[in-house]
Amino acid sequence: MLPGRVSIYEVGPRDGLQNERVNLSVDAKLRLLEALAGTGLSRIELGSFVRPDWIPQLADTDELARRLPRKPGVRYSALVPNRTGLTRAIAAGVREVAVFMSSSETHNQKNTNKSVAESLEQFAGIVASAKEQGLFVRGYLSTVWGCPYEGAVPPRRSLEIARKLRDLGCDEISLSDTIGVGNPRQTREILDLFLPELPAATLALHLHDTHGTALANCLVALEKGISIFDTSIGGMGGCPYAPGAAGNLATEDLVSMLADMGIETGIELPKLIEAGALAQELVGHKLPGRRLQAALGRRHPGEALAVT
Amino acid sequence: MLPGRVSIYEVGPRDGLQNERVNLSVDAKLRLLEALAGTGLSRIELGSFVRPDWIPQLADTDELARRLPRKPGVRYSALVPNRTGLTRAIAAGVREVAVFMSSSETHNQKNTNKSVAESLEQFAGIVASAKEQGLFVRGYLSTVWGCPYEGAVPPRRSLEIARKLRDLGCDEISLSDTIGVGNPRQTREILDLFLPELPAATLALHLHDTHGTALANCLVALEKGISIFDTSIGGMGGCPYAPGAAGNLATEDLVSMLADMGIETGIELPKLIEAGALAQELVGHKLPGRRLQAALGRRHPGEALAVT
Repeated sequence: MLPGRVSIYEVGPRDGLQNERVNLSVDAKLRLLEALAGTGLSRIELGSFVRPDWIPQLADTDELARRLPRKPGVRYSALVPNRTGLTRAIAAGVREVAVFMSSSETHNQKNTNKSVAESLEQFAGIVASAKEQGLFVRGYLSTVWGCPYEGAVPPRRSLEIARKLRDLGCDEISLSDTIGVGNPRQTREILDLFLPELPAATLALHLHDTHGTALANCLVALEKGISIFDTSIGGMGGCPYAPGAAGNLATEDLVSMLADMGIETGIELPKLIEAGALAQELVGHKLPGRRLQAALGRRHPGEALAVT
Repeated sequence: MLPGRVSIYEVGPRDGLQNERVNLSVDAKLRLLEALAGTGLSRIELGSFVRPDWIPQLADTDELARRLPRKPGVRYSALVPNRTGLTRAIAAGVREVAVFMSSSETHNQKNTNKSVAESLEQFAGIVASAKEQGLFVRGYLSTVWGCPYEGAVPPRRSLEIARKLRDLGCDEISLSDTIGVGNPRQTREILDLFLPELPAATLALHLHDTHGTALANCLVALEKGISIFDTSIGGMGGCPYAPGAAGNLATEDLVSMLADMGIETGIELPKLIEAGALAQELVGHKLPGRRLQAALGRRHPGEALAVT
């Protein structure tokens, strides 16, 4: 049974841009945010309140948050790695924040300089403070489908951590296929384990598309009742330094498939294609989204000859 | 219930190359065929016996067929548009042939210069002759998921034609999403209509990947018991003249997903990646297959920072 409506959580301005080589100006990012906010998208992750020297691409998140294009029905959020990040987010007027950690020890250590236990301990205070101030809190759980250092990650371990994130007060938990290697059988197994304990309405799927399986994994998740998916405009985030590192699932690819299946997202595909074209222009290279490239380069059908 | 084993029908040397700008020499094609035949692939479509001036990229199919790398367990086939094509195929030693037509009148007319009724009438004689001589005959039915001229194509119309192709003696019918716009709900509807009349073992799916939905559509088909899929090495066939025209689903993308799901194909992924790298070198541009690009450009995992 497929959901009738799906909510898309756009991560291009954060997860996309942090993996792009180019450093966009605040004005360029505002142009992109303006375009995205005009598509019908209701949730956009604008940036990350990490140390400015840590991810130079996102060093201007404070200024960006202050100058956001406010539109009715559009919610913005940002990553906060620690209490300083939370303080900055609140000071900049951000009302939704996301903490992040990994299921695998090695990835968590390399990505956040903490053990899994230390991350959870730190989040206890941060999530409580955020909730006290009425913020919506998302918890990212990375490497659920696999870790670049440890390989396979036992789903039971991910579930244990997800349970703790929920108990700390996270309103929503986004399960990430950080390296984009998940397959549909695995997705089914993971969700079969998670759903009896964590309701579908509190789970998002955050799938990178390295092996091209993200849409197939979404299909499995939709059939299990998942209705929140993280995507990036144009599939932004594939790093030009490393052609094998794919970005998030492209927003247009998922929105297009859902629309064709009769599932509502509230998003207008033509406007999304325009936003994708803008994103491509801003980062200065062709983005991997299939639907975007199809729209931008329609072949004249008269060229077909002996095709199958 | 997923099949335990899937058969991959490699169409790169035919459907891929006919849509590439470059004209490869017979020697270059033989290098590619040699690489493909060494991967564990059991079925390869080598070319098309159409008029040499019609598709210049495939004008050398006769010579190619005579010089094929013969390996135990590898079956080769070729397209035959008419009786002349069949005669040429047999003269060149080809033992498996494919006739092709479309579900939609306009596409069939533009692609083959015949009406649907005329195609079927012509095939009656060709398929009978081929069967008399002990050949395996495949029938391609194009535009089942949509026509570039007519838009939506009623699945009942496709089923009627497929039934006729079977009654003419086709051993296998390959249903094509020629323009690569299918969605999983549609795939389920099509197969729910077809499978009560045409057994899964006699049906193949031939999916182009314009909207990125091919793997999701394969997943639906696998769940319905389909176990023959047409794919192209590297996703070859996206035409450099027209960036929006995507090629077939990439062989490595499907083989990789199936392997990860525990479904056997008999194909060794590392050898497939090597064949994909060769295909990319031969056509002279980056191919769209995700798994190929991931393998060719592995990012050093130590670069990750605050990723989700």
